[in-house]
Amino acid sequence: MVSQPSVNIKEILEQVVSTKPLVYHMTNMVAMAEQAHLTLAIGASPVMSLSSEEAAEMVNIANAVLINIGTPSKEANEAMLSAAHTAKRLGKPAILDPVGYGATKLRINLVERLLETGAFSLVKGNGGEISLLAGERAEVRGVDSVGSPPAAIAAKTVAQKYNCIAAATGPDDYVSDGERVYVLRSGHEWLTRISGSGCWAGTLMAACLSVTEPLPAAMSALSLMGAASQIAAEQSDGPGTFRIRMFDVMYQITQNPHAFSFPQWELMEV
Amino acid sequence: MVSQPSVNIKEILEQVVSTKPLVYHMTNMVAMAEQAHLTLAIGASPVMSLSSEEAAEMVNIANAVLINIGTPSKEANEAMLSAAHTAKRLGKPAILDPVGYGATKLRINLVERLLETGAFSLVKGNGGEISLLAGERAEVRGVDSVGSPPAAIAAKTVAQKYNCIAAATGPDDYVSDGERVYVLRSGHEWLTRISGSGCWAGTLMAACLSVTEPLPAAMSALSLMGAASQIAAEQSDGPGTFRIRMFDVMYQITQNPHAFSFPQWELMEV
Amino acid sequence: MVSQPSVNIKEILEQVVSTKPLVYHMTNMVAMAEQAHLTLAIGASPVMSLSSEEAAEMVNIANAVLINIGTPSKEANEAMLSAAHTAKRLGKPAILDPVGYGATKLRINLVERLLETGAFSLVKGNGGEISLLAGERAEVRGVDSVGSPPAAIAAKTVAQKYNCIAAATGPDDYVSDGERVYVLRSGHEWLTRISGSGCWAGTLMAACLSVTEPLPAAMSALSLMGAASQIAAEQSDGPGTFRIRMFDVMYQITQNPHAFSFPQWELMEV
Repeated sequence: MVSQPSVNIKEILEQVVSTKPLVYHMTNMVAMAEQAHLTLAIGASPVMSLSSEEAAEMVNIANAVLINIGTPSKEANEAMLSAAHTAKRLGKPAILDPVGYGATKLRINLVERLLETGAFSLVKGNGGEISLLAGERAEVRGVDSVGSPPAAIAAKTVAQKYNCIAAATGPDDYVSDGERVYVLRSGHEWLTRISGSGCWAGTLMAACLSVTEPLPAAMSALSLMGAASQIAAEQSDGPGTFRIRMFDVMYQITQNPHAFSFPQWELMEV
Repeated sequence: MVSQPSVNIKEILEQVVSTKPLVYHMTNMVAMAEQAHLTLAIGASPVMSLSSEEAAEMVNIANAVLINIGTPSKEANEAMLSAAHTAKRLGKPAILDPVGYGATKLRINLVERLLETGAFSLVKGNGGEISLLAGERAEVRGVDSVGSPPAAIAAKTVAQKYNCIAAATGPDDYVSDGERVYVLRSGHEWLTRISGSGCWAGTLMAACLSVTEPLPAAMSALSLMGAASQIAAEQSDGPGTFRIRMFDVMYQITQNPHAFSFPQWELMEV
Repeated sequence: MVSQPSVNIKEILEQVVSTKPLVYHMTNMVAMAEQAHLTLAIGASPVMSLSSEEAAEMVNIANAVLINIGTPSKEANEAMLSAAHTAKRLGKPAILDPVGYGATKLRINLVERLLETGAFSLVKGNGGEISLLAGERAEVRGVDSVGSPPAAIAAKTVAQKYNCIAAATGPDDYVSDGERVYVLRSGHEWLTRISGSGCWAGTLMAACLSVTEPLPAAMSALSLMGAASQIAAEQSDGPGTFRIRMFDVMYQITQNPHAFSFPQWELMEV
């Protein structure tokens, strides 16, 4: 840990609220509803659609695009590829969340085709997904970097490999631009006892990406998740009430970010 | 404001509870789960399906049909058209919620084809959707009706244009039969901080439509939304707990509507 | 009521937590999100997918498979059949929840084709679905068994007919191996005021089925539902808060099952 990057999360959240960006979610059927609730709670505006017949038009009217492959289907996959190509062509900020990457050939092929579009300035996943995306190079680097967590190395590798910002979430979150790696030690155990907390992070990143660059967008989103989860957990008796309190706290924080403190990212040696 | 229409919401809610209507929802993947929860909370019975192979049969066994195009797909669109044709043929009460009308060509075409079936005695949407549905005539009328809110004018126009009852929801809700326009000033700001509150109104309207005419169905449903949202907000700390409390309050109200008071509709000059 | 079967629910729940089984859900769009939340709350791991292109691979990596036909679609139906065949071939434990069986020809045909695979060691449904599945034999038995509840008879018939364990849920739950029938008198009325409580029971059964036989899996899951619902109801004001509290209580129980008591199954004469 050598220094603290300067990301003005409070300003970014205020800009989200003041611009109310339209975040086009192409996302899985499990987290979709709560991602929509979250988008509104933080003052942005969601649109969800997996229709191949309107994906390109939706990209056109959106301020940011989030593609999350959690529950693939023939039509959804076609729609996601159409959206990615359109986002690239129009220069719309776009995030890829390769949920379950590596679990099936379908997901591996879909993610490869999506990444080939060059549309994504930010790729986020859990540590396992990002490590698999990093592929052999991560393994090699793992040998080189004794003591560095595999997910941190993988984030750096993915950022280099796909010329993007990469975020690997987990007990510790890592974000990398391919040169530097930053770590956030925050969050709460109950984030692993609800489904979709990683998907929620994607929603927050997409909202932030509509008002700032990918690196501060990823860092702000994960700081917000960390801050909110710690407050929500204190008000809750288990993962059910915790999940619902998250929407209250997200709303309260984004209504008045200056009243809250946020966990800080640190530069790490990888 | 000249007079108050006589809609016996308490009697309508009691009839819903005593008849437990089966409400066939063809609805979007975002609000679907909570619309099912809501249907049960108020004492009705939901069935959700977007399968083109069973849509006609589902219409046949349902007491009311709600078609909400929020997340279109090839199969769902085909299923919705099949259901609309069947509802028309069988005379089943049916509601259209043209979510996102105007956002894409797909949605415009789908809504036009659905409306061409003549199946819908009630069309509901937010103010923007109803205004777009009203089309040029709304703009013309907007010029004519200085001082009238655009959504109120649009509701009247849509009711005339499609020979139905039209409801435009928003901070103020408007319902029109094409001659008169009624306004409801109720609700809570947090209804805009959760996803699907408009879809929920569609669910309530569909349940009421199984026991009464479209005009009192729309008015009762929106009065219920208004009453419940104000009570739920008082018991909540933000949009998360508010959303969950809504199900408690909806249940409490419909269990004993005589213990509650409801916001009143007023006739307005448009 | 003659005796109490010996099912060590506490041990089964501890085994779920310690092995963290991967439960592959092919389930309806209404309950899917909350089934994922529930799986994580009890310490297991969910994967949801209705993609026909990856169903076989998902079965291969899963510890148990749950097929719930609540919202059929062309691709989902194809995927479910693919998964059932693969589960049979690989000997993966699999549960069928024939939601809405009998409501449409599509559901009848789909369930028949799924059952023909011989993949399911456990078939669960509500009393109505299990009674319809039992078919004529249930009616005949109904004549023979004066005084026995139809759902209890149907569970026995379905278990015989499909050579499986059958569970019929309702105010009283029945489980049968085709010879004996057991009854559980537990639960709470609010389970009927939320959508998907039967689907949740399927999730719990699938998690248990990954560590034990179908009969104790079904009985443990329904005892857990009963215990949790009674505790959650005491902490709630209606079906909304009840639904959320269920996740807290499920988490609390499975974290420390020895601190809780569970409703007991009883053998009954059918």
